Amino acid sequence: MSSSPLLAELIDALRCLPGVGAKTAQRMAFHVLERDRAGARRLSAALGTAVERIGNCTRCRTFSEEAVCGFCASASRDRAALCVVETPVDQLAIEQATGYRGQYFVLLGRLSPLDGIGPQELGLDRLAARLAEGEVQELIVATNPTVEGEATAHLLAQLASGAGIRASRIAHGVPLGGELEYIDRGTLAHAFGGRQEL
Amino acid sequence: MSSSPLLAELIDALRCLPGVGAKTAQRMAFHVLERDRAGARRLSAALGTAVERIGNCTRCRTFSEEAVCGFCASASRDRAALCVVETPVDQLAIEQATGYRGQYFVLLGRLSPLDGIGPQELGLDRLAARLAEGEVQELIVATNPTVEGEATAHLLAQLASGAGIRASRIAHGVPLGGELEYIDRGTLAHAFGGRQEL
Repeated sequence: MSSSPLLAELIDALRCLPGVGAKTAQRMAFHVLERDRAGARRLSAALGTAVERIGNCTRCRTFSEEAVCGFCASASRDRAALCVVETPVDQLAIEQATGYRGQYFVLLGRLSPLDGIGPQELGLDRLAARLAEGEVQELIVATNPTVEGEATAHLLAQLASGAGIRASRIAHGVPLGGELEYIDRGTLAHAFGGRQEL
Repeated sequence: MSSSPLLAELIDALRCLPGVGAKTAQRMAFHVLERDRAGARRLSAALGTAVERIGNCTRCRTFSEEAVCGFCASASRDRAALCVVETPVDQLAIEQATGYRGQYFVLLGRLSPLDGIGPQELGLDRLAARLAEGEVQELIVATNPTVEGEATAHLLAQLASGAGIRASRIAHGVPLGGELEYIDRGTLAHAFGGRQEL
């Protein structure tokens, strides 16, 4: 029992956030009520606005409240390079970690026929149309190194080849700072097979 | 840079939650946008309603959207016992862990003269008035075993004694399942000094 039904509802609603269980939700609810009502008001507004207004960019399918997102609309970004990722969060990771300043295309998933996710669901018709425009000269495939991600990469390579465009795949191997002793076999075999001349 | 200013605002707003840093906020924002917009809408509403409508019970000072909270209004709870806690979350912890079904009084803080928190800020005048009503027969002091919490407990004991009411303090000592070897010295000394006859 709690002293307040609204408080109980808040604690329960907080559990929609990933990694937030009953105890954490409780701590969060009490924290904002005791110490940060202004922050909670702002979060309430930001959440409400975000879910109502954020849709997908009509050009690259990433999250955007505009019909065309900031990346696609930017005049300063290289239009000859197109990086394909699975999700908007992958796009953000590349943007934050690398110096890449080309364009993106977001699949919003990966090839998974058993789940009913085929080329249509990944927007590959739109990607093909984009490649046919003639601006793109390199397709950088940055899908995840999972079975589905590799299958998706294979399909994307075919698409690029059909359009006469060079396709590349981001490198997979031993992560920086990783020790061979502790790397899983699959990664090590991949790194070994993919060795490059010094 | 992100593809969407609204998304950036949502990620930033999420950081008002305790324990949520930049990376976690990012993960939460993408999660709700990709997979749980209904949950996000509900959370937005719950947060907004909670901060607007949850105030403090006029009788026990806990969080409540009513003038008198569910605990104080309940006819089934023992009115002879009054448990004093520092915060609403302490009250919830006692309610969930123990079989206690008496009344509560929430200080919303602890004695801390350097921070300008004295008897007035803790509502001790209201507590004194409550004790003078004559219903309460035992004051259970459940402030935290910190320096400020102990000072507060001492003051509460004086208040009870002045009103001719029995005061008790919850026991402090070695936690269940704790091993003496790993308990801090202060707790162990306290547990040793507070030993009870078998």
